[in-house]
Amino acid sequence: MSAGADAGEERLGRVLLTRVIEPGDEAGGRWLRELGVAEVVRRLRDGGRRPPGVSGERWAGLVARAARAEPERDLREARNAGVRFVCPGDIEWPGPLDDLGDGRPTGLWVRGAPSLRTWALGSVAVVGARACTEYGTHVAATLAAGLAERGWVVVSGGAYGIDGAAHRGALAAGGATVAVLACGVDRPYPRGHTALIDRIAEQGLVVGELPPGDHPTPSRFILRNRVIAALTRGTVVVEAACRSGSLATARAAERLGRFTMGVPGPVTSSLSAGAHELLRGGATLVTDAADVVELVGDMGELAPPRRGPVLPRDLLDPAARAVLAALPGDRPAGAGEIARGAPTTLDQAIARLYELRALGYVERHGDGWKLTRQALISARGGPAPC
Amino acid sequence: MSAGADAGEERLGRVLLTRVIEPGDEAGGRWLRELGVAEVVRRLRDGGRRPPGVSGERWAGLVARAARAEPERDLREARNAGVRFVCPGDIEWPGPLDDLGDGRPTGLWVRGAPSLRTWALGSVAVVGARACTEYGTHVAATLAAGLAERGWVVVSGGAYGIDGAAHRGALAAGGATVAVLACGVDRPYPRGHTALIDRIAEQGLVVGELPPGDHPTPSRFILRNRVIAALTRGTVVVEAACRSGSLATARAAERLGRFTMGVPGPVTSSLSAGAHELLRGGATLVTDAADVVELVGDMGELAPPRRGPVLPRDLLDPAARAVLAALPGDRPAGAGEIARGAPTTLDQAIARLYELRALGYVERHGDGWKLTRQALISARGGPAPC
Repeated sequence: MSAGADAGEERLGRVLLTRVIEPGDEAGGRWLRELGVAEVVRRLRDGGRRPPGVSGERWAGLVARAARAEPERDLREARNAGVRFVCPGDIEWPGPLDDLGDGRPTGLWVRGAPSLRTWALGSVAVVGARACTEYGTHVAATLAAGLAERGWVVVSGGAYGIDGAAHRGALAAGGATVAVLACGVDRPYPRGHTALIDRIAEQGLVVGELPPGDHPTPSRFILRNRVIAALTRGTVVVEAACRSGSLATARAAERLGRFTMGVPGPVTSSLSAGAHELLRGGATLVTDAADVVELVGDMGELAPPRRGPVLPRDLLDPAARAVLAALPGDRPAGAGEIARGAPTTLDQAIARLYELRALGYVERHGDGWKLTRQALISARGGPAPC
Repeated sequence: MSAGADAGEERLGRVLLTRVIEPGDEAGGRWLRELGVAEVVRRLRDGGRRPPGVSGERWAGLVARAARAEPERDLREARNAGVRFVCPGDIEWPGPLDDLGDGRPTGLWVRGAPSLRTWALGSVAVVGARACTEYGTHVAATLAAGLAERGWVVVSGGAYGIDGAAHRGALAAGGATVAVLACGVDRPYPRGHTALIDRIAEQGLVVGELPPGDHPTPSRFILRNRVIAALTRGTVVVEAACRSGSLATARAAERLGRFTMGVPGPVTSSLSAGAHELLRGGATLVTDAADVVELVGDMGELAPPRRGPVLPRDLLDPAARAVLAALPGDRPAGAGEIARGAPTTLDQAIARLYELRALGYVERHGDGWKLTRQALISARGGPAPC
């Protein structure tokens, strides 16, 4: 069997496993690490010896799930619905998720054009209560818009309340946003956010660990939060009651060495009590997007070294090269003008611009985009004379 | 001349100096330290050689002020108005003020029965904006009431807005409060707070560096803040705009090694921006009195050692002994019952109870007061059998 066929088999195995192993199941992650995907799948399908530490009953349940799984059909139907499967080893796999160790997702189902990997590099999570106040909605939307205007990708959970306000704020600013769902990405939840989540999939990304058609459950919501925490540079909690899910995201972020931030509010509001608890525990108080960016940094460590050349243009995919070529060399341009020059759709242009930003080619300039100094040097084929 | 006469002369000299040297004048403080009070007064009165580093013009101004000063008359008129003069070397002088170094007040004018020294030991400053919001008023009053209920003395500046709300909150809880004014303590400022400040002088203390009759000035307000910061265990800023006077108090507190705390509020409110700035700079976020007390401590280091006896009762003044004797040994009692038992007025009883608390004799118990374990042991004349 060729290496390509091996990779294809591993990939198909991981697709199957998203139907068998629940998100965040660290025992499952350990089997994959110790036995390899192919061996775990073989044992599940052929009724092989169960891995150590799993009860007969539980193993039988997993075997039954595996028997019902049809990974080729899942992949085919997903492809027809515009959904792709991204797993460890893929170019698009976001390395930061590996920080989750054995709790790392088996793979992610992804809707939307941009590269999840490059978007994750310059992303911040904005999360909070579903039943939030008007204050929370206002702050989340304003914060997300400010982050988007500064070229940051806003990640949230697609829920009512703070999550929705954060996504909307980023979209309204013509910016980048990612919804991480606790269910199949073809099955937006909550239902009332179907239009919003579809819009996110057009202008940004909708991702999740669960295979197409799967439903959310309470534990899936909680475990989804670790993906939001791991994917991003930091997590901002806007409004949260004590012991809420968004605090769990923030604590996961802290354990993973990400920045943890909280937006204060009235001490008389129980919906700010969680954020205040977080702040008293050492999270950083932020009042606006500038405060967030000051903390999470200018992406300097992600961009190429300041004086060195950027990634050779040849390694960019054709769509990104076309968008890059549409940027004027001498002034900033709006996304609309760049899209017309590429030519491509506005959504595609925005998606590519964020990728190019993460790679150090372009930067935001007010409402528009311009080439970085490194990109100009690279276009000339070498370092500029000093 | 006897030592007593020396002390009397030094005291009279300090009374005169409160009319000559402006609050916080560190050059003046250095002269006192290097030359002594008597010598500085002699030079001012007899036109003696001016201390190094002071211009002839400035010195002439101070000499003119000294010529107009009538310290005996000031003391007499103050006494008639129920105002006493407390200065370094007095039993009532609060030691923490010495942390101000050469900026230490020359002396303090004090209205009210309680001992400033013992009250300062268990005190917290609650300060903030004059033009505050309803949110700020509510939080300041609630916080101050909570601190008072826990036996802490609430110190503030007597101003409109947060200061007034803090004083009122403490008074309403039957608690202890101190107003530190930037003018003569016989001349309440602002005028609209005359009734409030009179009430504070009845139930608590009104203190200031300026001699009777003196007016506040902008610089006196600013320099008053250092006294609030130094007098207390910590400073809580409730609402403050950026670059406000209450932030100056908090920064003074920080420099003096006191606890610095801020109450968060909506990030959309410019009156919370100063508190947020403070919190981002390292102050501790507090949402209620419990948070404050958790930080400033249980006064353990001020109270006598946990197992040791308290100060012998013989050393208490007769009024405090009478109040102590009125506390039942087997249950908590309200201040009213204790006042009737002493017998004394309610205000006097409260004043003495706070002193006794600072000395480790009594503690708050819900709405009432009870003897501490140490006080019970001391009443039996020795440590209890284990």
